[in-house]
Amino acid sequence: MNPTIELLKSHRSIRKFTGEKIPHELLRELIRAGQSAATSNHVQAYSVIHVVNPDNRQKIAELAGGQNYIADCSDFLVFCADMKRSTAAADRAGAEVIRGMTEQLLVATIDASLMAQNVAVAAESEGLGLCYIGGIRNNPAQISEILRLPEHVYPVFGMCLGYPDQNPEVKPRLPVEAVLREDFYTDEMDDELVAGFDQTMNDYYRERTGGNKDTTWSEQLKPLFTSKLRPHMRDFLSKCGFEMK
Amino acid sequence: MNPTIELLKSHRSIRKFTGEKIPHELLRELIRAGQSAATSNHVQAYSVIHVVNPDNRQKIAELAGGQNYIADCSDFLVFCADMKRSTAAADRAGAEVIRGMTEQLLVATIDASLMAQNVAVAAESEGLGLCYIGGIRNNPAQISEILRLPEHVYPVFGMCLGYPDQNPEVKPRLPVEAVLREDFYTDEMDDELVAGFDQTMNDYYRERTGGNKDTTWSEQLKPLFTSKLRPHMRDFLSKCGFEMK
Repeated sequence: MNPTIELLKSHRSIRKFTGEKIPHELLRELIRAGQSAATSNHVQAYSVIHVVNPDNRQKIAELAGGQNYIADCSDFLVFCADMKRSTAAADRAGAEVIRGMTEQLLVATIDASLMAQNVAVAAESEGLGLCYIGGIRNNPAQISEILRLPEHVYPVFGMCLGYPDQNPEVKPRLPVEAVLREDFYTDEMDDELVAGFDQTMNDYYRERTGGNKDTTWSEQLKPLFTSKLRPHMRDFLSKCGFEMK
Repeated sequence: MNPTIELLKSHRSIRKFTGEKIPHELLRELIRAGQSAATSNHVQAYSVIHVVNPDNRQKIAELAGGQNYIADCSDFLVFCADMKRSTAAADRAGAEVIRGMTEQLLVATIDASLMAQNVAVAAESEGLGLCYIGGIRNNPAQISEILRLPEHVYPVFGMCLGYPDQNPEVKPRLPVEAVLREDFYTDEMDDELVAGFDQTMNDYYRERTGGNKDTTWSEQLKPLFTSKLRPHMRDFLSKCGFEMK
């Protein structure tokens, strides 16, 4: 196992940071590493908002569900799917641009995600810790307003970055067999593999909490799927100009 | 710049591979590195189909628009957004599961993308080359049929992997200033930054082709936005159970 793969496999979310600040030049370097990720047809359909204003950090922390590390970490980034820059460029070059296609939502969401994951890997290679903040999609309209996002741009997720002040264990993942299949999709083994993983997660939770958190992967997923998860997202995306035509 | 960041910044798509095969254990290791990426609420909403059957590789190469490296590379993977495994697990645990939310499409698409980018980085750290294949969304229904993807699973993109038999230059990216903004989105500088990048890309294309390819970034984007990009995607996703409610 080479050091890069070792680094990838050692990832865990960090939610407690020392007060040390990330040098600005390093932050730019992380973004450059992010931009080096593959991008669909060279579109580069992303923008990153570096939220510096402390009041806005505090507001976003609340809007994301009371995640105070958004305010406390060294640097907080919002990764946006951006179909504005590239379509505006084509428009200036004389194209009659069509916007709002479902495929464009996918392209921009994927582009932003690949880019962000490179930023995450680059950050960890420099000894930084991070956590993704999907919670910005709890109140995306308010967050878009704070960041003054224009039409054809939406906030996909945030990322807290800083020097770790905690050292949590790596959280287990499903066995490779559950995820990698040859030639065809099959869920024949899923009952067994998921039951095994439920046990793995039960051991993990109990060990970390002295027995208090006695749950499984499947149990943990239940509240996520019994409610309508972020039911505002469809209308929100439409209003952003991602009409999913 | 540390070696990992150097690796990230040296990425370029590889479309020509030697005949050397990737050892199966290494491929599994790449997938494990992929699984270590962050995942929304620990859902791990992805599956990877390793397409081994040569006839299927050939069919997919054609369906993706005649990309023969899909058939020729050492290993071809299809990364799928998978809301089936996790919702089925919650269902078995007694939850009344709600599916088809727009947010679930996002979660699974993002999860699959973060995972794939880790696979890409791990692969390159082992001296492998790769290219993403968004072209599988040209004919996603046929590809889903070949891979026997069930409801609540859709193919996001493919990835060709192998030992590089070419050494293309790194393709330029937009300047950091065009992508990273402080506190607020602004496109005030976009005219100028994009004009500069158009020049960068014009130099790049002309140098690589002895002057024959005399175009710019903006010009290259035009055909992408003047037609309805993959207009089947909305209906296709609906049929897959991603109804975008």
